Parts: sequence; structure tokens; C-alpha cells
Amino acid sequence: MGTENNIEGIRHSLAHLLAQTVKEMWPGSLNAIGPTIEDGFYQDFEINGKISEDDLPKIEDAMRLKLKEWIHFDKKEVSLEEAEEIFGDNKYKIELAEEFAEGGKNLTVYTCGGFDDLCKGGHADDLSLIDPKSFKLTRTAGAYWRGDEKNIMLTRIYGVAFTTETELEEYLKNQELAKERDHRKLGKEMELFVITPDVGAGLPLLMPRGETIKNLLMRYMRQEEEKRGYQQVATPVLAQEKLYQRSGHAEYYLEDMYSTETDEEGNKFYIKPMNCPHHHMIFEEMVNSYRDLPLRLSEFAGLYRYELSGTLTGLIRMRGPITQNDSHIYVTQYQLRSEFKNLMEFFAQVYAEFGMDDYWYRVSLPDFSKDKYGGDKEKWVQASEVIKDVLDEIGAKYVEAEGEAAFYGPKLDVQTRNVNGKEDSIATVQIDVLVPGRMDLTYVNDKGEKLNPIVIHKSLMGAFERFMGFLLEKTGGDLLFWVAPEQVRVLTINDSVADYVEEITSILEDTLLMEPLKYNELRFSVDDRNESLGKKIKEATELKIPVQLIVGPKDKEAGEVSVRTKDGESKVKLSELKEFLLSLK
Amino acid sequence: MGTENNIEGIRHSLAHLLAQTVKEMWPGSLNAIGPTIEDGFYQDFEINGKISEDDLPKIEDAMRLKLKEWIHFDKKEVSLEEAEEIFGDNKYKIELAEEFAEGGKNLTVYTCGGFDDLCKGGHADDLSLIDPKSFKLTRTAGAYWRGDEKNIMLTRIYGVAFTTETELEEYLKNQELAKERDHRKLGKEMELFVITPDVGAGLPLLMPRGETIKNLLMRYMRQEEEKRGYQQVATPVLAQEKLYQRSGHAEYYLEDMYSTETDEEGNKFYIKPMNCPHHHMIFEEMVNSYRDLPLRLSEFAGLYRYELSGTLTGLIRMRGPITQNDSHIYVTQYQLRSEFKNLMEFFAQVYAEFGMDDYWYRVSLPDFSKDKYGGDKEKWVQASEVIKDVLDEIGAKYVEAEGEAAFYGPKLDVQTRNVNGKEDSIATVQIDVLVPGRMDLTYVNDKGEKLNPIVIHKSLMGAFERFMGFLLEKTGGDLLFWVAPEQVRVLTINDSVADYVEEITSILEDTLLMEPLKYNELRFSVDDRNESLGKKIKEATELKIPVQLIVGPKDKEAGEVSVRTKDGESKVKLSELKEFLLSLK
Repeated sequence: MGTENNIEGIRHSLAHLLAQTVKEMWPGSLNAIGPTIEDGFYQDFEINGKISEDDLPKIEDAMRLKLKEWIHFDKKEVSLEEAEEIFGDNKYKIELAEEFAEGGKNLTVYTCGGFDDLCKGGHADDLSLIDPKSFKLTRTAGAYWRGDEKNIMLTRIYGVAFTTETELEEYLKNQELAKERDHRKLGKEMELFVITPDVGAGLPLLMPRGETIKNLLMRYMRQEEEKRGYQQVATPVLAQEKLYQRSGHAEYYLEDMYSTETDEEGNKFYIKPMNCPHHHMIFEEMVNSYRDLPLRLSEFAGLYRYELSGTLTGLIRMRGPITQNDSHIYVTQYQLRSEFKNLMEFFAQVYAEFGMDDYWYRVSLPDFSKDKYGGDKEKWVQASEVIKDVLDEIGAKYVEAEGEAAFYGPKLDVQTRNVNGKEDSIATVQIDVLVPGRMDLTYVNDKGEKLNPIVIHKSLMGAFERFMGFLLEKTGGDLLFWVAPEQVRVLTINDSVADYVEEITSILEDTLLMEPLKYNELRFSVDDRNESLGKKIKEATELKIPVQLIVGPKDKEAGEVSVRTKDGESKVKLSELKEFLLSLK
Repeated sequence: MGTENNIEGIRHSLAHLLAQTVKEMWPGSLNAIGPTIEDGFYQDFEINGKISEDDLPKIEDAMRLKLKEWIHFDKKEVSLEEAEEIFGDNKYKIELAEEFAEGGKNLTVYTCGGFDDLCKGGHADDLSLIDPKSFKLTRTAGAYWRGDEKNIMLTRIYGVAFTTETELEEYLKNQELAKERDHRKLGKEMELFVITPDVGAGLPLLMPRGETIKNLLMRYMRQEEEKRGYQQVATPVLAQEKLYQRSGHAEYYLEDMYSTETDEEGNKFYIKPMNCPHHHMIFEEMVNSYRDLPLRLSEFAGLYRYELSGTLTGLIRMRGPITQNDSHIYVTQYQLRSEFKNLMEFFAQVYAEFGMDDYWYRVSLPDFSKDKYGGDKEKWVQASEVIKDVLDEIGAKYVEAEGEAAFYGPKLDVQTRNVNGKEDSIATVQIDVLVPGRMDLTYVNDKGEKLNPIVIHKSLMGAFERFMGFLLEKTGGDLLFWVAPEQVRVLTINDSVADYVEEITSILEDTLLMEPLKYNELRFSVDDRNESLGKKIKEATELKIPVQLIVGPKDKEAGEVSVRTKDGESKVKLSELKEFLLSLK
């Protein structure tokens, strides 16, 4: 027996402990499953009575008391009949036991502190070594039995656990920080968006400041894409089912798509969850010959996807509008490699602009051993190799995920860690080697042969709303200067500076940012209300306005302004104000 | 008896003549209704057999022959029983006769050339004066009996008629011109948009050149609105039914709205046909006090409306996306007048930019005598007076339409004539005195009282797609220079000018338009393919590229370019090229 417990084992053991504790405190309750998760564990219960988050501290205390008697787990192998005897009153355990025992297999039951549980093992070797201050119950939530919304809703209790108390404290501090940076909290304080019960869950409305950020991100991407030969198009949010049948999406995505009721003429439409099939229609209209390729179509359209209400999270996970930074690049097989390489350079440049250096790639490939791909194997192999070769060539960090390709080809996701430390995708590139053939998209090559193009699906920023949420959480609301919806606010100390404020605003009006977004006029306002300076500063700070220019009689006399930013206060001469503003990042 | 026939009377008489002629040529056919319309008349038939547009000339000839025997109409009053005897084999006439005779009223039957028709009168006094060359049958179409799609589809034959042959010829020439300018024809030639059977009718896809025009119009309106204190927002295309119930739109618009099928959670959403209720949600979030007013929210969102497929017309009448240039201005009653006046100035300025001087206003008021308005009469009166007073003050041309107000307030439409000479609305302003009360939208005035704001709904350009269609038809595709999707194309005569072309393109890259849209970089391309100059010019001309710069060895030697525009060709020195481009309208 080792002297140190594996952290997974500790978490798993605590899930058992939680189960017994709750069953004793709420007699007649049933425990369902209790696995470990990132940072901790949970346990699902059918509670006999009521339980709330206020109960968690006393459950924790009871667990700590009981932990003193829990030293180690005993394992026994049992038959299904024996298991039914042990868990006879618990329908959840019986359902699982019957499944696990299929084909006459034996089951394992682990016991500690007199508490039996159906379990496959993996506990702490020596529970006496668990620091009773290294875990904490964090919250409760509803969870359907087996994750199926047709089943009963159970109560899930979450806990976190670490090897030491110090680790737990650090974790909780980070969580607190993450809460401060939660884009939903910032979104409210900064007046960016609102979700209302009348419109519905997962359907945020962007208020002027939020729309300004989204519009700046869109203008920037449009500018960068135009430099690289992309052309913008605009397609309807509605299309008939036959479009998705032709593209093959109907087979895979119909469940996540909103459809309309049939109209008087018998038409039923789907609301688009992606732009691909629409863009393929434009390809058909625009492309005849290889001379027309590459064709780079781009659209910043609002998409809609059905997501269960429990999964919805502000701008990060929504039903719509998901304003996708979406492009489809139609290439010949000879253009694929260089186009893909250009894309990787494009990605690196944009992410550098936003100070993102902590991302890596995830390459999802087909599982060739299982024939888990449609169409022509040779094309799948070529596309997979192009992705890996280019990443190797540019020295990019990536992991491979076999068997996780899209239905139409291999893909690459851009991965990063979000504010909670969790891995998250921010963007994707997919190489489609299937749909052009299925939809009969063709061009004529220089020998007069009809061929199918390869389509590169690219979304560099993902959805603009989601990217905004991501930036808010990364920066805590202190956005890059050029992205801030209101960049400068002039705060007056009293009315005697009115004429001086006019001098200042004429400088602000005359200041034009050119980097990274060209011809970006300064967004500013003047707060000359008859209010205290303290109140004015408080409001501007809550809105995260990066530059506050405080103007009083002394500033006027000295021909300067007091500049207040998140880094502190300083004085800037009026003659140097424009230069100062242009230097901001 | 007068010596000149009234044109309405001529058209009406010809509709009778058409009825008899067709019934004789297709025995067993039934005539339904045959009214006059703008420029002519039509007659609906249940045809016994088949009829096509190829048959129209021979019907016309037969009409001309028969016209010689048609001198004047005899009128007789008949009872329903007598009418049933006369029209016994014609169920359409019987149905109408029964309706007209309700309450025991007598009916009138007019007879000419031995042909009886149920008719209320209004014919030519002396048919011998009708010039047999002054009318023409133009087309056939399907039309439901009584306009109800549940009824049988009849065959409608259209004709046009004038007092003289010259007038007819002029009309036909204009029609030909209108056909040339049809935005659907230009849209194809200029590669602006496409409608595909897979996506569906009424759902156009904007190709890159079309999207460029739309985007320029949007940038321009956004710029002009920002100058005037408007703030852009972005709201989802979906919302729950209760939003429309709260606003009252459900009662009036539900038939024209697409709804989604109910999702797994029991939610049903409507696809927005207007932005108002969404914007009212943002008002609630942003406004507390009178100090927050006026609030001017603007959104350029794609709306969707159910229209019968027979009414769909390219970008002019579509199901979606109808990208509305939509604003909602929330004002106190004291701000209404000045805000409305500002709007009228805004309208005039934008329309002048597009060279539109042939528009007038149509003011739709409630019918106060019939209580045909909801809510507070005083507010309706005030709003109606504001509209008329301001129009009088600025000396604007307007007509009044009593009883045609929106359900929530009086409105003003901007009317013009389209390429077919028909009256059409391009924009609207509505003063909403009802919904803010119904939805309980409030602000607190300077006395601490809670009041409802008045909402001005404004759409200056209407839908951007529709405005684009309108501009195409008005200009025949020769758009204003700053709106042309591709403004300049350089056409080489041969390869010897490659370095000279580089000099030219560096000038083009360096040319920035500032009027009327600021910071508008020139959109140009180079056609240096190994093709004949004739072919290059033909392609650029079909795309309606306003400036073709033709470059050959002689131009290079002389340090100039040959400029080809719709007005002809000229030479421009390279040193004056930029100045020339900046001077274009």
C-alpha cells in the first residue's frame, strides 16, 4: 500500500462517502451514479425530501466526521442475484447491475464504512491520509437519469477535491476570479447584451455597446479577409429541406435544426445551422472552370441551433444568432496545400493581434481501420496528410484525435483554455472531400475534365458573439483599445471648463485609428453632467471605458488633461493628446 | 352622345368584347369578371380547352372584326330570376348575381353585339369611335376565382388600351424599356443575386457583387444615422409567441409570420417579420428617465414574411431576408415634433443623394368618425397633426388616406413610381401611440411620473435588397459611382503594358472616396487575360462597370489611359487620373 493516494482515487472515494452521508441524513433517498470529473466528483440522488445548496456545509461536516471511520475499500465479486439482494431497494443500481451483468458476467461491489456500492473500483488506497480540509461541496443541479430528458430528474451534488488544503484554496480563488470575469456579469455591467423571458432563453439581444464590439470584430475580419481575396455573400436563414438532403446535412444535423411549420403552399423550411449548402449554391452559379478557383466565399450570418436550455451560457453557448465568421474556400487538389498553409498563417496573425499565445491545434482524423468515412479514401488520406504536414512544417503544437473527423472530411480545431481552466474550441478548419461529389459541384480542369473541388470550411473567430464572450473573460472586460465600444470619456469637474472641453473634443474627432482596423474613428463621449466626479468615474469604470480624461480648471490652466486608465493616472499635454491616443493598445 | 369616349369606358367595353370573342372561339368556356385596371383591362375565364399566349394575336384579330358590329351598349334592369335565366349556364355570374341582388335589389345587364353581361355600367358611348389599333392583348396568367386560393384557378387574359395607336405604341416602347431595366434581368447580367429551387422561391442569395452593393448602402445609412445619434443593436430572428402577444402584433400579423415547430422542451418560436417588439425589450433595459430620451435604436436585420409564391418578384417582393433599414425612436410627447421634422430633413437629404426627386408622401390617418383606432384618441390626434403640420411647414407634397393608419398609429409612406410607371412605397414612418402603453414601456418624467414614450418607427431605405432593386430599375444598372460593386476595370490590349498597369493600380489603390460614404476604398480589378479587347469590353460592359481604363502601348507611351464610360471615350493623363476618379458621381 502506497503512502500517497492518487487524486482520482481520492475523488472517487469521496463520491462514495457523499452517497452514504446523504442517504443517512435524508433517509429513503436513493443514490444513482457518482463519477469523478475534472477537479472533483458528483453524486446523483433521488432525494426523499428537499435538499438545497444551504445544506451543503452540514453535509460536508458529516462527511468529515464519517471519514475518520473510512480507512479502505473491500472488494467482492457478486452475481446478479447477489447484487439484487444487496441493492434491492435501489432501482437505479438494479438497472445498472442488470446491464453490467449481461452475458452472465460477475459484478463488483466495494464496501467502506459499512456502505456497499456497485462499482468498478479505483479508490484511494489509504483513506486515513485524505486531508479533510482538501474537499468541498460546491453546488447542486438537476440531472436526468442517464442524461435522458425523458427520464426522472435527479439531484446532483457537485464536489471538488485536491490532495492538499492549499490546492483547494488556490482552486477556489481561481474560481472566484473566474466568476468576476464571467462574461455574463461583465455583459450586464458593461451594458453589452440582455436575455429576456419574452424573447426566450439562448437568444441574446445585443445592446448598442455589444453590437459595437461585434461590428468592430466583423469589420476587422472583413478587412483581413478582403486582403486575402475573400468575397462576402449573404444568404437567407431559411431553406427547404431538400437543400440539406442534397448536401447530406439532413442525415446528421436535423435534430439540432429548427424547422418551420408547413405554409399554406405546403413548403416547410429549415433555419440554417450552417452556411455550407447555401454557399455551394453560389459556387454553382459562379464557377465553371479551374480559372475560377480558388473561390473564397465568406458570410457573417446569424445561425440557429437547438440546444437544451440547461446547456445555454450567455454568448458562449446560445441558440442564436450565432454570427459565424464563416468561409468556404473551393480549391483544386493542387491548391489545397498552399491554401491551407495560408490559412494557418492567417490564424496565427489574428490570434497574435488579440494577444492569444496559449492555443494549440486538435486534428480530427477518420479512423481508417474502421472505414469510418464516406467517399473516396485517397482524398481523405491526402487531406489528412496536408493538415499534419503543414502543422509540422510551421512547427505548430497539435494533438491527433482518430475517429473524430467530420462526416465530410478531416478537421482541425483551435483549442485554448477558458477562464475556468477548461479546454474549449474557438475556431475550426475542415477539409470537405465528400459533399462536392455528393452535390455534384463541378469545375472543368485544363484538360476539359469535370472534377469536384475540395471545400475548406473555415471559421477563424468562430461566432463573433462567442469570441466577444471569450475576449471579455480573457481580459476581464479590459478589451483592446480599438475594440472598446466607448474608448474615451471626458469627465468634467465643473462647468467652467466647457470651452476647454470643446478644444479636447475637436482633437478626439480628428483622431483616426489605422491599426489594426483601418479608418476607425474614435468613439468617445463627454460627461458634463452636474454630478460629482466620483460618481462619473465610478460609472465610466464600471463600463470599462479604457481612457477617462478628467478635466478641471487646473488642467485647463496648465493646458493638459488628467488621463485615468486601468494602469493609473497621469497628465498629458493637450498638444500630445492625439499622439498619446494613437499609441494605445 | 359625346364624340369622345372616356378611356375607362373604352377599356371596360373591350373587356366585354374579349369575353364574347373567347367564348365564341372556345365554345363552352365561361367568363367570370372583367374589370379595367391601370393601362387596360382583364377578363377571367374558365376555358373549355387550352389557351396560350400564342393565341392572343388571333383573339385580337377576331375582336377587331367583331368591333365593327359593336356600336353601343343597351342597359336593362332585371330581377334575380331573370338574371338566372340569362346566365343559367355560368355559375360565376349566378354567384355574383345572387350577391348583388341581396335584399331584393334589381340587377343590371348590359348588352352589345348580342352579348349579355352582368355589369354595373360605365362603357364607351360610341364604340365606332374606338381605334381598332389602339389596344393589344398582352399576356395570360392564372388567377383564383375571387382571389381566394381555395377556389378554382381561372385563366386571366390581360389587355392594354389607349385612345390612339400612338399612345399604345409609346406605352409598349416604355414597357420594353422597363423589361430591359427589370432588376431580375440586370441582377443576372451583373452577377448580383440568384434564386435557386433548392433554397426556395422568394429567398434570394446575394452573390459577392450584390452583397457589396447592399453593404455599401448599409455602411452609408449607418454613417448617416450615427451622425444623428442612432445606435445600432442586433436581435435574434427568433422569439417566443408571447413577445408578439405582448406587443399586439400577434393579433394582426400571425398569418404572415413563419413559426417553428415546437421543440423538445415545448417552445415554439416565431421568425420575426419586424424588429419593433425586440427593440422594445432593449428600451426596457436602457431607459429609466426622461434624460435617456430620445433613444434612437437601429438595426439592419433580415426579416421574413410569408408571401404567396405568385406575388414574389426578385428583390422587390420576397420572403426574406428583407434586410430592413429599421429604426425605433423613443420620444416624449414634447420631443415628437422636432424629431419628426428632423426625420423629414434626413429623408430629403438621402433621397437627393440618390437623385430621387419624383417622390411624394402618403399620410395614413385613422378614421376618427368610425373609432378605427386603439387607445387614447388625444394621442392619435396629436400624432396626426404633427405629421401634417410638419409636411405643411416644409412644403412637402402629400395625399391623405383616411382609415388606413397602422393599428398602433398614423403613418406616412414615401411614394414613387417604379419602372413600370406604377405607384410604389419605398419607405415609411409610423408614429406609435398604442404599443408602449400596451407593453407597459415607461420612463419617469421630471416630476417623477411614470409615462409611456411615443415610438417613431422609421425605415428610410425600406429593405436594402428592395432599395437595390429599385436603384437598378431606376438607373438601368448604371449605379452611382460610389455604389457600383466594381468601380474601375483596367483592360490591357497586350502584355507589353504590364509595368505600366502596375503604375496605374498603385494610383487606384491610393484613391480614397470620401463622399458621400467616408473612407471608401476604390474597388477595381485588372483584366490582363490573353483575350481580345472586344471580349474584355463586352464583359465589363455587361457587368455595368462604370469606368473601363483601356491600356495599350500607345497609352503607355503618351503617359495616359483611354477612359471608357457609358458617356463615351476620352483620354486622361496618368497624373490626372486620381482627380478624374474623385470627380465621378
